[in-house]
Amino acid sequence: MKIAVLPGDGIGPEVTREALRVLDALSLPGLTLFEGDVGGVAYRRHGHPLPDETLAMARQADAVLFGAVGDPSCDTLEAHLRPEQAVLGLRKDLDLFANLRPAKAFEGLEDLSALRPEIAGAIDLVIVRELTGDVYFGEKARGQTEDGRREGWDRMAYAEDEVRRIAHTAFRAAGTRRGKVTSVDKANVLETSRLWREVVEEVAAEYPDISLEHMYVDNAAMQLVRDPGAFDVVLTGNLFGDILSDQASMCVGSIGLLASASLGERQTEYGTFGLYEPIHGSAPDIAGKGIANPMATILSAAMMLRHSFGREDDAARIERAVAAALADGLRGGDLGGSDNCEAIGTAVCQRL
Amino acid sequence: MKIAVLPGDGIGPEVTREALRVLDALSLPGLTLFEGDVGGVAYRRHGHPLPDETLAMARQADAVLFGAVGDPSCDTLEAHLRPEQAVLGLRKDLDLFANLRPAKAFEGLEDLSALRPEIAGAIDLVIVRELTGDVYFGEKARGQTEDGRREGWDRMAYAEDEVRRIAHTAFRAAGTRRGKVTSVDKANVLETSRLWREVVEEVAAEYPDISLEHMYVDNAAMQLVRDPGAFDVVLTGNLFGDILSDQASMCVGSIGLLASASLGERQTEYGTFGLYEPIHGSAPDIAGKGIANPMATILSAAMMLRHSFGREDDAARIERAVAAALADGLRGGDLGGSDNCEAIGTAVCQRL
Ligand SMILES: CC(C)[C@H](C(=O)O)[C@@H](O)C(=O)O
Ligand SMILES: CC(C)[C@H](C(=O)O)[C@@H](O)C(=O)O
Repeated sequence: MKIAVLPGDGIGPEVTREALRVLDALSLPGLTLFEGDVGGVAYRRHGHPLPDETLAMARQADAVLFGAVGDPSCDTLEAHLRPEQAVLGLRKDLDLFANLRPAKAFEGLEDLSALRPEIAGAIDLVIVRELTGDVYFGEKARGQTEDGRREGWDRMAYAEDEVRRIAHTAFRAAGTRRGKVTSVDKANVLETSRLWREVVEEVAAEYPDISLEHMYVDNAAMQLVRDPGAFDVVLTGNLFGDILSDQASMCVGSIGLLASASLGERQTEYGTFGLYEPIHGSAPDIAGKGIANPMATILSAAMMLRHSFGREDDAARIERAVAAALADGLRGGDLGGSDNCEAIGTAVCQRL
Repeated sequence: MKIAVLPGDGIGPEVTREALRVLDALSLPGLTLFEGDVGGVAYRRHGHPLPDETLAMARQADAVLFGAVGDPSCDTLEAHLRPEQAVLGLRKDLDLFANLRPAKAFEGLEDLSALRPEIAGAIDLVIVRELTGDVYFGEKARGQTEDGRREGWDRMAYAEDEVRRIAHTAFRAAGTRRGKVTSVDKANVLETSRLWREVVEEVAAEYPDISLEHMYVDNAAMQLVRDPGAFDVVLTGNLFGDILSDQASMCVGSIGLLASASLGERQTEYGTFGLYEPIHGSAPDIAGKGIANPMATILSAAMMLRHSFGREDDAARIERAVAAALADGLRGGDLGGSDNCEAIGTAVCQRL
């Protein structure tokens, strides 16, 4: 079982280190780790945020464990050299089309949300975001209008197969949950959304036990504030998914606890190839101080065991250990506490 | 002073009626009202949601007072005949490029928000949304990829002059408020956003006293939940503005109280030509029962007096009367009360 570990920038290396300690504590047989550079650190060492060696390493692995990228010293670089290009490049090159972001209230932590505790406490949803299409990867250019004014443009598009495969991901996920898919689009305005809606309907016909509702993205942004507990699986495109998944995680409140998986179609010997990362960023302001909360990365490693290595039991063990550490009062700075990165890693290992 | 009144569908007619009673109670000299059909009702009477006569009437007026459109019986019509096309058509045809949506907590109503009262109570922002460009009005079509798969696509674009004029609107608004503009885009991914950011910077140079920050849309959706009180003027494009303005109004909680203005460039004898409407929809489920809350439409009429007729004093009088009615305990069903539409209109008139 080969894991490409890409710690990246800022707090990426410290949180990744603790996730690896937790994996180590499970003593899984046959685990091989490779480490590669990505993001600002890769740019400084190799002149590119996503060097060929890193990409090759990721391609040959069964799963990728990713820390975070983002480095203020790169802000003035040309767009194609900035750290976030590594994120987009990995997604596209590895065909990681399905981004899963569970957002679930942690018991006892409802007070961290800006939402009322009874509303925040009811959140238990997963955003299924398409990750390799949409206006993100369409043609784009700077140009001029016919009468010579400066213009910037991007092509938004979805093809039927792109919608079909992510819809299947969402319906399958709903089957293991509460059986409800909310497909979010802007079909009253966008042709891309009308195709989206049509194909989602076609796929829905294959899942008679799953209920499907369509919701416009503006309404979805409202309902995620008003009554997030009403959502189960939220299926949406790349751009709307970017916005709604960040909004949903903030509704939970504990950003330092939320994990994500980006899955491809490729099946390895052990499961589905995927990339796993915390949803928080590189947090340059606290980098290197050892005070970042590694729980989101530890929980991302658990998702990796589940989806890429078929080790549901080990995944659940890690999740229970994190929950136990929280129940025992362990709190990183993001949760208003003062437990440091290593102490949290140790606490989770002890509770495995 | 000519006002085109377009009550529309659902609760549109009842709430508009109360707003007109309030205007009447002010006994403004020289006010002439024209009434036109729009939305589902217009489709049924004239075969089109935005008949030529309605458009002509709106064009000849100094301002448009709009109720709401949306009618479930039109859901199966072809896209170009649905009620929302009337909204898009009016915006484009009347060049209403600047949508202003103030979102401000009402004292004593903080408990209506899903956010904690102390967070909701701090909200005092205005979203300045570009309304006639972006992916909304770009070329769009159903097609096929080269290898024959079905595809839907839309062109997202902004030209410099479109960005410039809405940026000026935002910076001017900030000058009358707390002096801060947050421009929201997705410049790490979209070329449209990179042009947007460039032009906003150019305009900012003309307003040395206003502070400008740029924020990615995913982050903005998070900050609107976490700390909405930190925003003053939010400047953004048509698509992001659609999402964020609905999210922001839901953060306030009292959707039935929020007004909006959509302004053009045209100056009339009295002020800026514009269209004014409550941000809530046609609410078909309660239409005709007389239980809708007309306060948002009454407050939209106040915005009309301010922007289109230069009558700041009268606008403020209406706003104070609504606040007084709320302070006296008047509550529509949307606020958990049982005061009906007409009673609320009467209460506001009495407090003018
Ligand atoms: C860094 C950026 C390109 C990326 C995105 O927009 O997809 C990020 O916001 C995310 O959600 O992973
Ligand atoms: C009805 C629809 C086309 C419209 C929009 O998306 O602009 C509405 O959501 C709004 O915000 O006024």
